[in-house]
Amino acid sequence: MRGFFYPRSASGDASLIPDPPWYYSGDLLTAEYRTDPARVAELLPPPLEPAPDDPGAVALIWADWQSCSSGRTELLDPVRSQYKEAFVVVRCAFRGEVYSRCVYIWVDKDFAVARGLHQGYPKKLGSVWQTRPHPFAQAAPSIGPGGVFGATLAAADRRLAEAVLTLREPVESNGFVNAHPMAHHRVYPGIERGASDSYGELISSGAAEFQGGQAWGGDVELRLFESPTEELARLRVDEIIGGYYRQVGVVWDGGRTLARLEAERPDYHG
Amino acid sequence: MRGFFYPRSASGDASLIPDPPWYYSGDLLTAEYRTDPARVAELLPPPLEPAPDDPGAVALIWADWQSCSSGRTELLDPVRSQYKEAFVVVRCAFRGEVYSRCVYIWVDKDFAVARGLHQGYPKKLGSVWQTRPHPFAQAAPSIGPGGVFGATLAAADRRLAEAVLTLREPVESNGFVNAHPMAHHRVYPGIERGASDSYGELISSGAAEFQGGQAWGGDVELRLFESPTEELARLRVDEIIGGYYRQVGVVWDGGRTLARLEAERPDYHG
Amino acid sequence: MRGFFYPRSASGDASLIPDPPWYYSGDLLTAEYRTDPARVAELLPPPLEPAPDDPGAVALIWADWQSCSSGRTELLDPVRSQYKEAFVVVRCAFRGEVYSRCVYIWVDKDFAVARGLHQGYPKKLGSVWQTRPHPFAQAAPSIGPGGVFGATLAAADRRLAEAVLTLREPVESNGFVNAHPMAHHRVYPGIERGASDSYGELISSGAAEFQGGQAWGGDVELRLFESPTEELARLRVDEIIGGYYRQVGVVWDGGRTLARLEAERPDYHG
Amino acid sequence: MRGFFYPRSASGDASLIPDPPWYYSGDLLTAEYRTDPARVAELLPPPLEPAPDDPGAVALIWADWQSCSSGRTELLDPVRSQYKEAFVVVRCAFRGEVYSRCVYIWVDKDFAVARGLHQGYPKKLGSVWQTRPHPFAQAAPSIGPGGVFGATLAAADRRLAEAVLTLREPVESNGFVNAHPMAHHRVYPGIERGASDSYGELISSGAAEFQGGQAWGGDVELRLFESPTEELARLRVDEIIGGYYRQVGVVWDGGRTLARLEAERPDYHG
Repeated sequence: MRGFFYPRSASGDASLIPDPPWYYSGDLLTAEYRTDPARVAELLPPPLEPAPDDPGAVALIWADWQSCSSGRTELLDPVRSQYKEAFVVVRCAFRGEVYSRCVYIWVDKDFAVARGLHQGYPKKLGSVWQTRPHPFAQAAPSIGPGGVFGATLAAADRRLAEAVLTLREPVESNGFVNAHPMAHHRVYPGIERGASDSYGELISSGAAEFQGGQAWGGDVELRLFESPTEELARLRVDEIIGGYYRQVGVVWDGGRTLARLEAERPDYHG
Repeated sequence: MRGFFYPRSASGDASLIPDPPWYYSGDLLTAEYRTDPARVAELLPPPLEPAPDDPGAVALIWADWQSCSSGRTELLDPVRSQYKEAFVVVRCAFRGEVYSRCVYIWVDKDFAVARGLHQGYPKKLGSVWQTRPHPFAQAAPSIGPGGVFGATLAAADRRLAEAVLTLREPVESNGFVNAHPMAHHRVYPGIERGASDSYGELISSGAAEFQGGQAWGGDVELRLFESPTEELARLRVDEIIGGYYRQVGVVWDGGRTLARLEAERPDYHG
Repeated sequence: MRGFFYPRSASGDASLIPDPPWYYSGDLLTAEYRTDPARVAELLPPPLEPAPDDPGAVALIWADWQSCSSGRTELLDPVRSQYKEAFVVVRCAFRGEVYSRCVYIWVDKDFAVARGLHQGYPKKLGSVWQTRPHPFAQAAPSIGPGGVFGATLAAADRRLAEAVLTLREPVESNGFVNAHPMAHHRVYPGIERGASDSYGELISSGAAEFQGGQAWGGDVELRLFESPTEELARLRVDEIIGGYYRQVGVVWDGGRTLARLEAERPDYHG
Repeated sequence: MRGFFYPRSASGDASLIPDPPWYYSGDLLTAEYRTDPARVAELLPPPLEPAPDDPGAVALIWADWQSCSSGRTELLDPVRSQYKEAFVVVRCAFRGEVYSRCVYIWVDKDFAVARGLHQGYPKKLGSVWQTRPHPFAQAAPSIGPGGVFGATLAAADRRLAEAVLTLREPVESNGFVNAHPMAHHRVYPGIERGASDSYGELISSGAAEFQGGQAWGGDVELRLFESPTEELARLRVDEIIGGYYRQVGVVWDGGRTLARLEAERPDYHG
């Protein structure tokens, strides 16, 4: 049976996602802010601990991606290569190292959901939009001083977040919250009624290759909205740190296990 | 940390899927046919074997569902409870017992993708449509003699399957291919480059409760179409067995492990 | 050139909508309430006047439709026959007669947008959901005492309205606001910069044939939400009149002109 | 009553489209080819005539747009400003002048459908995708020699067209078929059963302002697919003329009437 992911078959052609490495070209719009550190700590299960400094820092990042596998065939059938996502990153510590960690994420394609499942990103479907730069200004900003970019996120027919970013100047990086290797849980709930997880591990992962253009910084307004099925608004915006825009190229080619997790029965919600 | 599925949090409110049991009310349109048994066998990894009789039998089933958890709150926000799916079922044998097995499936909501991941259904997103019965005939068939129902499936902007079912008479069941407990693989690919699967098991699962209305049988036409990312058309329609329509109510409440699978490196496709 | 609507061609096969009559089978969930009559009057351009009694009455109606043309071929390709809509109806008077009038409407298919353009319904795209009844109660209400139905509307990634209807008893009708022939404007803005409308008429239209099941009445909760591109919330819910559920079959086969409108330059917004 | 388009209201805020002028920034991928001139002539109702030279020339154009009104507010809520379209252009003659004419077009937003209705573009909804250029090559081509771009079109869950364009060199223009002012019909079918059109005119329209980047030419492969509700494949690809890519900025600010059309009963299809 071949196929990196399901459905596996004799040829592997139907696999929802191809073998890594996976390649990405895209634009990142980042809003960094501070929330109550206790709200961040709630999202850090053991063995993770809060980051030692600025433990309430949060990055809400929009990304407009084109992606493909080594064969690049997806690029010629772009319904299979383009997707957008919005994701929330916090920082945490494990064995004395600081990691970034994605706690919420929404994407608009199924292959992106499956890649997230593999990488430990907790992906749901959402409707994600961000203003695009373009060389002609009739209906587009430029990546430069005064360029204004909007970004929105919705899921299940409710708007969850909105940002407006006005660029001011070149800066050294597009933020610090998402700048570490990721520390993610990969968990598979047990199939029996009331069972503990069948599998659990803490993994680390990051870009195998990374190219970044000039990062731009600016002023960002950010609004979060309540939803009965989301907890994003619980990470209330107490203080804006900054807003950033950057174009990047990335290769992802696997991660490594940081810790195997004890299989224990989760504290069921119901 | 609470939450049956990701993202887990202090409250569990954001979990993409709630704790089982899960409840379903819906309509099933089934087309059963025979294909080359070798094409079915290709989709049965060890320790599964072909079913001893009629090993080339296939069921292509459309389902128009409303579903909810025990709290039934999803029913009042129906964007979170309604979904449609089309799935392909074959039969197989394990330790002398015959099982049904879903080899391909497409759904149109993310919570359904996640439930499938838990249950071992290899779900992708698709666009799924089936004619609805209605008490007024201006633009609807009845579930009765002469009622005509259409059903279509598309994914990634390509039509994959079409069926037209004309009901003839009450029958004892809506087919035999999907009538056994399911035998599904639950597999989690390893995070390291080129690694074997981190986790693999063969599980069995079926309805904890089932209610079915009168099954109707009839004549069905079925067409499958090629796609570069799908292998459905490889299960060529050699001989139609029959077409069926049935309304059902189902409760699902977990399964059980049939076998833990050796963690072995999959035969990568690339 | 053939074709009821664009694009017209030698065969007419590509027309976005077929020749009337058009046939509909579906379920209607209605919430009737009173708002400030001045807000209704604002939506009644001359020569329309407010209805003489209860001029602030509003109906917000969700409809889950299957529809087709005389050839019924759309029913076998249900992506072309099923759609959902939510619409807002008020009443008005013209030459001493009372009419119903749809002031806002959202649908989820293009053929429905085009039919609305023909009939004078001001259709936009939206995401529309309403709970479905089903014979099996695992995840569905029945149309009967205690049956609870939810309904939601969103457009441009913002939720605009939500209703929850709990059925109590059979009633004589599913409301009075949408019970008259419709009085709609059909207007085509002029193509030249700043021009008056090229065409304008007031038309009346209703069902050529109608069948209705037992209407059920009950208690309804209704919430409207703000959006920068919608004015639905301006029709504030001051007093609930009632909630209703009814299954219907309808044929539509054209309307008639009530008045040709003077071509005058609209009072541009910009 | 204010509002350029429906629904008109006291403020005009709910109008599906704002007052012109409308502003556009986007990328155009064009495939030009020759088909049987008789198939083009079929789509030219009187008083239009075939173009005097190369009357079988066709352009199939994909466009990835960002658009806004004078206030530019849509750019900050990009679900309201971004859309994609694929459209088919032929040429025709009227009173000795050559015009371009859009005979089929699919878009993916409702505001684009409404603008098309105003401008005489026969817009349907479709799923439209085209590869995007990006400064980082991990998963994107550049606009330059060897850049490869794919483009696809689907409607009603069927793929209708696919193109693959490989850029070779700078060229003077991105084609000649769409290079003239547009000659479009604006037609409003009559509301009474079997009536002739209520309104009909032939209009001309083009860009009020236009900026174009360097046009690139190359080799293009184009495939058209059958659909029961489309006639695109009837414009069979007999000979490829060329493929082009160009980034543009456009302002549209109205057109002018070329001829009022006799109101005559269309030759109904049914």
